[in-house]
Amino acid sequence: MSEGNIMIENFFEIKNKDPSCLARTGVMHLPHGDVQTPVFMPVGTKGTVKAVSKESLEEIGFEIILANTYHMYLRPGPDLVKEAGGLHGFTQWNRNFLTDSGGFQVFSLSSLRKISADGVTFRSDIDGSKHFFTPEGVVQIQTKLNSDIQMQLDVCTGFNEGRKKAEEALRITSDWAKRAYTEWQKQREEGYKGILFPIVQGNFFEDLRKQSAEFVSAMDTPGLAIGGLSVGEPPEVFRSMLEYTVQFLPEHKSRYVMGIGTPDYILDAVANGIDMFDCVSPTRIARHGLYMTHRGMLSIKQKRFEKDFTPLDPECNCKVCRTYSRAYLRHIFREQEILSSMLASYHNLYFLNNMLKEIRLAIDSGTFAAYRKDFMKQFYSKDV
Amino acid sequence: MSEGNIMIENFFEIKNKDPSCLARTGVMHLPHGDVQTPVFMPVGTKGTVKAVSKESLEEIGFEIILANTYHMYLRPGPDLVKEAGGLHGFTQWNRNFLTDSGGFQVFSLSSLRKISADGVTFRSDIDGSKHFFTPEGVVQIQTKLNSDIQMQLDVCTGFNEGRKKAEEALRITSDWAKRAYTEWQKQREEGYKGILFPIVQGNFFEDLRKQSAEFVSAMDTPGLAIGGLSVGEPPEVFRSMLEYTVQFLPEHKSRYVMGIGTPDYILDAVANGIDMFDCVSPTRIARHGLYMTHRGMLSIKQKRFEKDFTPLDPECNCKVCRTYSRAYLRHIFREQEILSSMLASYHNLYFLNNMLKEIRLAIDSGTFAAYRKDFMKQFYSKDV
Repeated sequence: MSEGNIMIENFFEIKNKDPSCLARTGVMHLPHGDVQTPVFMPVGTKGTVKAVSKESLEEIGFEIILANTYHMYLRPGPDLVKEAGGLHGFTQWNRNFLTDSGGFQVFSLSSLRKISADGVTFRSDIDGSKHFFTPEGVVQIQTKLNSDIQMQLDVCTGFNEGRKKAEEALRITSDWAKRAYTEWQKQREEGYKGILFPIVQGNFFEDLRKQSAEFVSAMDTPGLAIGGLSVGEPPEVFRSMLEYTVQFLPEHKSRYVMGIGTPDYILDAVANGIDMFDCVSPTRIARHGLYMTHRGMLSIKQKRFEKDFTPLDPECNCKVCRTYSRAYLRHIFREQEILSSMLASYHNLYFLNNMLKEIRLAIDSGTFAAYRKDFMKQFYSKDV
Repeated sequence: MSEGNIMIENFFEIKNKDPSCLARTGVMHLPHGDVQTPVFMPVGTKGTVKAVSKESLEEIGFEIILANTYHMYLRPGPDLVKEAGGLHGFTQWNRNFLTDSGGFQVFSLSSLRKISADGVTFRSDIDGSKHFFTPEGVVQIQTKLNSDIQMQLDVCTGFNEGRKKAEEALRITSDWAKRAYTEWQKQREEGYKGILFPIVQGNFFEDLRKQSAEFVSAMDTPGLAIGGLSVGEPPEVFRSMLEYTVQFLPEHKSRYVMGIGTPDYILDAVANGIDMFDCVSPTRIARHGLYMTHRGMLSIKQKRFEKDFTPLDPECNCKVCRTYSRAYLRHIFREQEILSSMLASYHNLYFLNNMLKEIRLAIDSGTFAAYRKDFMKQFYSKDV
């Protein structure tokens, strides 16, 4: 496993650590360019971030986006994507892609989910057809997609699912991590350049989390993910379970928590030494007329914006805020113009990317605690 | 009326005439910049061209777009638009706007349409509320919108509506043209810079068309529109009625035919000396996955494009054709991604704008007849 070790050293470099907490800045060296961390990654479920062109993503400055293995596997299929030159060739997004394993979608979208030691049987939510995912098969699929960072197939459990289910899910997830690792090494030997992240599970049981964190940490991978959080639990449970889990993770590996996209969760995660997160929410809420601003969430449909000719967020430098008034943004939302989804999605992604830039600057200058406090105070001031 | 005369001389300059037909190139000097003619104008019904940002419209090179008076009057209302700095201030499209009079929408969208000599009563298609348009009121609304070119309120009749209705509609339209003109002059004296176009009507009766064309031509306006065509009649009827009408129009006024957006109609109109046209179809069909190409219409949903990694239209230089494959465009259409509407709308508008550029070059070099023949042969070759 010497090759694996060399890779770990090259993959992730920590740049600075904040004195007040576990927050750190770093850089991941990936096949499609460097990624500065901490990083928020927009979600391009089916190979495109909804209502945002790749030019806009480049303009905002994203270095990595997500695509969902479950969706790309069902349509258009991994062989077609491979033939098109992987996700990058197919979508023409030429920076990095992270793909999830499909495990969460099987759990949340599929009508059938039958887990055996070997793998998981599920039905397509599109046409009801039956499919079978194994840890090896999912690595092969993600390799065909040419993911820069791929995830192991795992078994997700919900909040309050009970000890027995949590234990069983963890046992299978750990076994699948090893199988995924072996398959990934094989693919690497055949020329694949992407990275594999195993996933910490254990539901909300501290001893299971500890066991999983130690198991995953011992694997020879340069990064890892913390799964099974943000699945419906209260924020304080999320926070304490994250804090608890992180202490068992080695500092030198990059850490990814899935499904985080609001400022409070992001700041919490960063303070706990998390380097990567993703969420569909910034673009999903955008399609419902919700804008993130420095003074909090703004629902553009409100009557009080009818004749408000000021910028959406005067503290934001994005082209939406520099160009349009709240009155116009309200008008196009009410009229259900596609442009409304386009502009709101652009703005929310710009806002989050800019927030992460500021977070990195704050960490680099040792002022993250003050930044976090100020940001939270403003964002939840309800002064929008 | 000396001011009106000066304006006419300054407004429209003819540059070149094709030797083979009535086609001509020219330039309109408008308050928000010059417009090269013949010109295709995209439609931004509610102040935005569907699924296309203003940056994209600028990038493609449009110099004028449409907005619909009926829609902008109902929501958000002319007073709000005026307060926002007119359509330009409100939408931040800082090139020219043409607005229609709302007459056609009252005819096609409203559940009630009661015409009297004074004006037209109609119900809003949004909330059923009752409204009253007069020729003067519609000029005032369009002045508040700060249209660069506004249209008189007219009475539209359908194909095969009968002589009596056609006569009555024409009588009212001509009367309203005079009233609109008087109101427009008043607005000009108060500082409004936009132009008014009266509209030729007369249904499909040659003598009524002649009468209307001569009446409108005698008015002191620098341009005019030919209305009541493209309302369901067969193409050959459209063509012959257009050809018949044009002979009664003075050469020095710019001419606008509404509702034309397919290559055959555009080439016909240009050959008949028409300078301006608009249509919602390029962006509407785009949302249904229909792309215009040099080899004809292409429906991207077809199975045969599943693994077609070639550009959409190899003869097109737009960023969609330079970037994406047919396979990817098919994928995002099938997945109902907003990006599909964005890219298809962009491409179709680029395609038409480029076609008009080529038409102008052909006219300037005296080769329009050959260009038209070649274009039609390719476009209808069904070789796509």
